[in-house]
Amino acid sequence: MSKFGEEWTRGYRDMLIEAGSRALADCNLHGEEIDGIVVGTMAPGSLVGQEHIGALVADFMGLNPVPAIRVEAACASGGVALRQGYMAIASGMHDCVVVGGVEKMTDTPGEEVASALGGAGDQEWELFMGATFPAIYAMMARRHMLEYGTTEEQMASVAVKNHRNSSKNKYAHFQNEITMDTVMKSKYVATPLKLFDCAPITDGAAAVVLMPLEKAKKYVEQPIEIVASAQASDTLALHSRASMTSLRATQAAAKKAYETAKVTPKDIDVVEVHDCFTIAEIAAIEDLGFFKKGEGGKASLEGKTALNAEISVNTSGGLKGCGHPVGATGVKQAVEVVWQLRGKAEGRQVKDCEVGMTHNVGGSGATSVVHIMKRA
Amino acid sequence: MSKFGEEWTRGYRDMLIEAGSRALADCNLHGEEIDGIVVGTMAPGSLVGQEHIGALVADFMGLNPVPAIRVEAACASGGVALRQGYMAIASGMHDCVVVGGVEKMTDTPGEEVASALGGAGDQEWELFMGATFPAIYAMMARRHMLEYGTTEEQMASVAVKNHRNSSKNKYAHFQNEITMDTVMKSKYVATPLKLFDCAPITDGAAAVVLMPLEKAKKYVEQPIEIVASAQASDTLALHSRASMTSLRATQAAAKKAYETAKVTPKDIDVVEVHDCFTIAEIAAIEDLGFFKKGEGGKASLEGKTALNAEISVNTSGGLKGCGHPVGATGVKQAVEVVWQLRGKAEGRQVKDCEVGMTHNVGGSGATSVVHIMKRA
Repeated sequence: MSKFGEEWTRGYRDMLIEAGSRALADCNLHGEEIDGIVVGTMAPGSLVGQEHIGALVADFMGLNPVPAIRVEAACASGGVALRQGYMAIASGMHDCVVVGGVEKMTDTPGEEVASALGGAGDQEWELFMGATFPAIYAMMARRHMLEYGTTEEQMASVAVKNHRNSSKNKYAHFQNEITMDTVMKSKYVATPLKLFDCAPITDGAAAVVLMPLEKAKKYVEQPIEIVASAQASDTLALHSRASMTSLRATQAAAKKAYETAKVTPKDIDVVEVHDCFTIAEIAAIEDLGFFKKGEGGKASLEGKTALNAEISVNTSGGLKGCGHPVGATGVKQAVEVVWQLRGKAEGRQVKDCEVGMTHNVGGSGATSVVHIMKRA
Repeated sequence: MSKFGEEWTRGYRDMLIEAGSRALADCNLHGEEIDGIVVGTMAPGSLVGQEHIGALVADFMGLNPVPAIRVEAACASGGVALRQGYMAIASGMHDCVVVGGVEKMTDTPGEEVASALGGAGDQEWELFMGATFPAIYAMMARRHMLEYGTTEEQMASVAVKNHRNSSKNKYAHFQNEITMDTVMKSKYVATPLKLFDCAPITDGAAAVVLMPLEKAKKYVEQPIEIVASAQASDTLALHSRASMTSLRATQAAAKKAYETAKVTPKDIDVVEVHDCFTIAEIAAIEDLGFFKKGEGGKASLEGKTALNAEISVNTSGGLKGCGHPVGATGVKQAVEVVWQLRGKAEGRQVKDCEVGMTHNVGGSGATSVVHIMKRA
């Protein structure tokens, strides 16, 4: 990973190259062994005026003529990049693929960032009508409160827990803990969501290297195996869905992932979920099967999702604490799970960590990607 | 395919759904049998304010929760989408993938389109300095003229031939033939390239359905086999390359494709090449091995690339005649080759057509994708 944050002294290219170089160093890999590149990034055309990102990376990492592509699925761009990389290896057409994720967001005026992020939803039926992403997730929160009695305190506890984790992560955007009081007294962005319920606008990049397992064993002492890679879609617009409190795409992707990996939620030791807003983490830990529908808020406030509690959720700090450079997030989740499975998560290490999961969402849930990983 | 052209009465979504529905009808396929979607599109964020295109397509084709992604490699977005779809089948993770390509360009003011297309090149080192894509290809043309004596008449003959082909293609943007006189008397856009040396700004979409071969035989009488799918990269900026007259990425991708398919240029009966400018077709037929370097212009003027001549190049009309809705182009090339291999190319049918090739380029050559297809 590059250090996440408001990185005004570094550009889009610099961050990706930094993350990519670290990933290569981590597995003692020389560039000439790489035969494929996949980059997840959401809106570089709008945010930094550059498309053709696959070729950009191949060029600036000195990897021509390696085939390189960019994939996009809004905020799930990193997750789908990981899945495409996995597929490239599984197809037998590639033997060593670098998967990167990146977004450079703070060089762009706020309203333009909001407009670019709006591209994750249905522009014609949601954004054009005045909805923004905080407003869309606020509706999901309101409905969760109505149906299950979820409270603002429960949501606030998610932010507090995620900052506690990110304060122990030197790559995180926010390195400070916060209190319930700070969250509860912060201003409403879209009621009931307050400033501290929202993930920040962040710059950053992350990268991983994928190989067939037997090959990976030759490069690193602790290779991590992807035992399931699943993805599902749902309607682009929130108003078309049967439920506003469950993400059907997450449920479908999780079901497929559990079946493929032959594990259950009880087997998962660490999970990085997509907490673009605190309510999103609450819905996610329910949809992924860690808690019953409606009980995610209570579980969060009771500390069941804290480090080394019932299930360690977002040890990196999640999108809220570690930051959310959109296209980088899904890859960063994989980096965190790899560190946890290797026992290298420093002050935020999950004990006896054997099985990890990542959960990356696009828009308000139109794309969901779930990966399960194990120590090989 | 949707009908290519200036489609002011139809939106981005409409065109993709139209092409997708036709592809499904063509192979007697029901939606519930599809288990993956890949869409190639270059700049919908800049052009129509929408990202998250995979999810959009899954939603509007009624295919939720099928996993769906968007891939981008500038003007090669369609070609890389085809390759990702091929990889998805080869990985064993998918059994029936719809690959689409789309771009909606005419709803956007010209200068914004030029800026969006600029994202295909190196924004920091080329576009920001004042270069546009016609200017970049004009430099390649000037150098080709200097090194090999290529003439403006030779380039003009490419446009005349491609319009002759597109006049026989009911899906083409331009349905009219043009004369050498028309091209030679048209105004300079960037000397030596004139208006009729340039592919137009076009709206359109195209789609194909991919399955394992044995499965495909159950759905259609004439399945077409992809016998090679190859891609390569080169520097994003033209000035970083060893040659301005050859695309190294095209040469590398073609080499890999010929080796994989175990065929030579002599075996290819029909090829769709990336003629965003007439000089690009001349360089392509050289780089793909149909003519020696420097002889592409002469061969074109002598009619060797015409329908049923030495090698039938761009029977669809190519980007010049059929139109160039950027993300759709790479998929449209595959559609044309499928029609040719099935003997269904109507007035532009290549005789005894058994092996076909597609060649799709991103930017000024930073990405190149080559596919070879055969009758199964």
